[in-house]
Amino acid sequence: MVEKPIKAPKEINVRDVTICDATAQMLEKAKRDGVETAFDRAASMKACPIGADSACCKHCSMGPCRLNAKDPYGKVGVCGATIDTIQARNFARMVASGAAAHTDHGMAMLDLFREVVSGENQDYEIKDSIKLHAVANSIGIETEGRTDTEIAMDLYKELERTYTQVEGEIPFARRVPPKTLETWRKHKLVPRGAMREIMELMHRTHMGVDQHYENITQQCSRTALSDGWGGSMVATEISDILFGTPSPVQVEVNMGVLKEDMVNIIVHGHEPNLFESMLMSVNEPSLIEEAKKAGAKGINLAGMCCSGAEMMSRHGIPHAGNFMSTEAVICTGAVDAMCVDVQCIKQGLAPVAQCYGTELVTTNPRCRIEGAQHIEFHENKPLDCTDAVVIKAITRFKNRNKPIEIPQIRNPGIHGFSHEYINYMLGGSFRGSYTPLNDNIINGRIRGVAGVVGCTNPRVKQDFVHVELVKELIKNDVLVLQTGCSQVALAKYGFYTPEASHLAGPGLQEVCETVGMPPCLGIGSCVDN
Amino acid sequence: MVEKPIKAPKEINVRDVTICDATAQMLEKAKRDGVETAFDRAASMKACPIGADSACCKHCSMGPCRLNAKDPYGKVGVCGATIDTIQARNFARMVASGAAAHTDHGMAMLDLFREVVSGENQDYEIKDSIKLHAVANSIGIETEGRTDTEIAMDLYKELERTYTQVEGEIPFARRVPPKTLETWRKHKLVPRGAMREIMELMHRTHMGVDQHYENITQQCSRTALSDGWGGSMVATEISDILFGTPSPVQVEVNMGVLKEDMVNIIVHGHEPNLFESMLMSVNEPSLIEEAKKAGAKGINLAGMCCSGAEMMSRHGIPHAGNFMSTEAVICTGAVDAMCVDVQCIKQGLAPVAQCYGTELVTTNPRCRIEGAQHIEFHENKPLDCTDAVVIKAITRFKNRNKPIEIPQIRNPGIHGFSHEYINYMLGGSFRGSYTPLNDNIINGRIRGVAGVVGCTNPRVKQDFVHVELVKELIKNDVLVLQTGCSQVALAKYGFYTPEASHLAGPGLQEVCETVGMPPCLGIGSCVDN
Repeated sequence: MVEKPIKAPKEINVRDVTICDATAQMLEKAKRDGVETAFDRAASMKACPIGADSACCKHCSMGPCRLNAKDPYGKVGVCGATIDTIQARNFARMVASGAAAHTDHGMAMLDLFREVVSGENQDYEIKDSIKLHAVANSIGIETEGRTDTEIAMDLYKELERTYTQVEGEIPFARRVPPKTLETWRKHKLVPRGAMREIMELMHRTHMGVDQHYENITQQCSRTALSDGWGGSMVATEISDILFGTPSPVQVEVNMGVLKEDMVNIIVHGHEPNLFESMLMSVNEPSLIEEAKKAGAKGINLAGMCCSGAEMMSRHGIPHAGNFMSTEAVICTGAVDAMCVDVQCIKQGLAPVAQCYGTELVTTNPRCRIEGAQHIEFHENKPLDCTDAVVIKAITRFKNRNKPIEIPQIRNPGIHGFSHEYINYMLGGSFRGSYTPLNDNIINGRIRGVAGVVGCTNPRVKQDFVHVELVKELIKNDVLVLQTGCSQVALAKYGFYTPEASHLAGPGLQEVCETVGMPPCLGIGSCVDN
Repeated sequence: MVEKPIKAPKEINVRDVTICDATAQMLEKAKRDGVETAFDRAASMKACPIGADSACCKHCSMGPCRLNAKDPYGKVGVCGATIDTIQARNFARMVASGAAAHTDHGMAMLDLFREVVSGENQDYEIKDSIKLHAVANSIGIETEGRTDTEIAMDLYKELERTYTQVEGEIPFARRVPPKTLETWRKHKLVPRGAMREIMELMHRTHMGVDQHYENITQQCSRTALSDGWGGSMVATEISDILFGTPSPVQVEVNMGVLKEDMVNIIVHGHEPNLFESMLMSVNEPSLIEEAKKAGAKGINLAGMCCSGAEMMSRHGIPHAGNFMSTEAVICTGAVDAMCVDVQCIKQGLAPVAQCYGTELVTTNPRCRIEGAQHIEFHENKPLDCTDAVVIKAITRFKNRNKPIEIPQIRNPGIHGFSHEYINYMLGGSFRGSYTPLNDNIINGRIRGVAGVVGCTNPRVKQDFVHVELVKELIKNDVLVLQTGCSQVALAKYGFYTPEASHLAGPGLQEVCETVGMPPCLGIGSCVDN
């Protein structure tokens, strides 16, 4: 049951909760419109202090037990679990669900890859043959004198082990630097298969099983590696093979990418399959014609969240904002349809969409939302779903009956610095190379490389932490790689423009100017951030 | 860090917390000895009322959010999740961890089966060839004119799919009654593979994924079926094939099975492999000799919890009590070693064991406990672990320095009514049959069959609910099947003796007396209860 949003009891000062001007403008509008967002709810909802300390356990029916993090060894749970056990278990469950999310997504990508390779699916194809060969080579699959289909079938079979294998080492363990791999083997951290690690971690965190935080943490690490070097890595590689490896592209980010006189469609989620299909649908002449008949100048597609960042880097699709802007963007009144798949889709979108008459459409069998419409996306008939969403969006455009207010902010920047491109860019005339980068790390001009990723959260001022952190890093000559919501946060403040190199310390600035590279590189190809 | 147990602030009245006389006697002793048990902790630990209503969510870093079950739609979580979503998610996580526990255990059993069948492991063997053929036949594996090894290898390959398969239907779906299977298929409930279902459920219950309680519940059901008709069923069948299918055996239950003048070893957990090996170790003449040299009359082995119930039904090993008696039994001072594997092992056992000098030994890599010793059990060298535990127990016997008090209560009964035995027992001269049972259900003498399983919990008077529930059922002519801690609970009150049929209603009593069967059948072969 979706209830009409109720104005939150605690009024927020929008400048306290975000540094994003567009989001702030929309939060003011939401206030005027009596619409509640996650920012309001975060202000009204006091986080449970015991839960926030991870000092409660509800893993069995003897509890829920509450310990006291300020007097950590003063009491234990009913079963006798200490706070060390409880906190390790709680953290482990987070790792298990995160790994499960990425792995389940990776598995879906691999399912599609198998269908494409076997010819069952004709709607997608192998777009990046070079990447196919490179990935195959990296794990010892023969590529010389073989067709793409032959290589791809072998690659499929090999990568399936990432998920289903129950003994041994996952295939991408072969890519791990030898010294690191040695350490992992020593501590029994090399994942066998992602599904087995997740299952075992869920088992071990049950009441009465693993009750030594060190042992629990060991399985946490193995499970996390089965995600990073398993589920997520497979998802990234397969996406690049099927949809193309990103290379730098100039693109605009922020709510100003919406167009008042066009049918606006936002795709928000994590699976490129849906988004790629939507890209075909919005370019379908008959649908464009339909949009024009409805009085629009055309159809305007924008992304949000992670599949948005991926499409931005891969195809230059404009991006409307990150996680904490997904409700705010609907408050523009200009979003005719928001089409979602899995992960980071707030249930709060449903009542906000209802207020503005935006069509909120769920498409994945794993994600339904009360109050949203469900049009299931099938990879073997992808356009059935995305065409239907476009038609819904056109109808909503025709019936727009609320005032529209689009923050006129668009931040251009260059995105899509995949590691393949960096290698190419830094190489000489005949072959790619990381040598200039390595040399400059060795000689100390660059003090290191940091990956900054992750979401925004209404309990922390939107974008603020990401921006300040990256500012400090580049000022201190640390090259930054970015993806996901963090990449989009930085995009809104001009970090991917040539001017940004002035924010870098002297060493990093010199290197960036020599090789023509910003101090902060938006990758956008890591699908799972 | 394990701290010395502290006397709980709230004193319990032992008669309020258990109807088990032996446990009550030991709880009084624990009080005198200043030893804390889960009963004390449950009395002092107020269950979190919001958590107990499943109205809190700590699945992401925007929370933990607390809703109010008394005003369920008054507020939503920061992400917008309603209480319906939150409760469905919380329940789903319980299903995921329960299924993971059973499935991980089943996978371990199947690993052993593969090793035995392939000849890698010579320490175990196929004990029940008839069961092997029956299980193979039930899923369409040809048995006619083939060796056990050939059949077993095919069975292994087929059953592995239960865990690793990512599409299709699990093998034991073929055993589901056709009408039921049709319903499952209609609602997309037939599990593909247990690991995939668990992974997908963990994904869907993450923040921002599945937010419709009906859709979440659908995947809950599919995951639960992947346990009941997958992980657990495979574990049961493989255990019977490797260790023998239970048939009725007279055996004693309760703390009186401990012997003051013998070295007492308790195995407590869920994996029969360990227990079977311990059975070999305690019968090893050199170790018995060693025990005698230490002044003991011999070595006395007893079970607790689920592997205990399994060994009781399979080999007539006496059983010392169920889940809520595991700390209390140590208070006898007579337990020289308690050897545990996985599941239901309270962390509170470690400080209690420390108080009485009992050797608490963890054996499974999935379960370590701070303060317990770890001697890892390897299926290919099983006696290395169990012999070492026996030696530790003998040493502890020699050094006993605390007064011993064993409640002199032993409850005899007949256990081990596997469905195979029931079929045999009810059959005619030449073949097994359920006809008499079916006829008596059709003619109304028996009004149905109920499975009563599950644990004890210090928040409910120990054994009371199980006993009262079963009493009512049999009084109302419902035949009861039992396993796990519930089976042991009933055993302590004489429900598996011939006298128990007087507790049954007239119809059930007549049938029981005719076919020579108690009104309540302890199975003890379902390893996962």
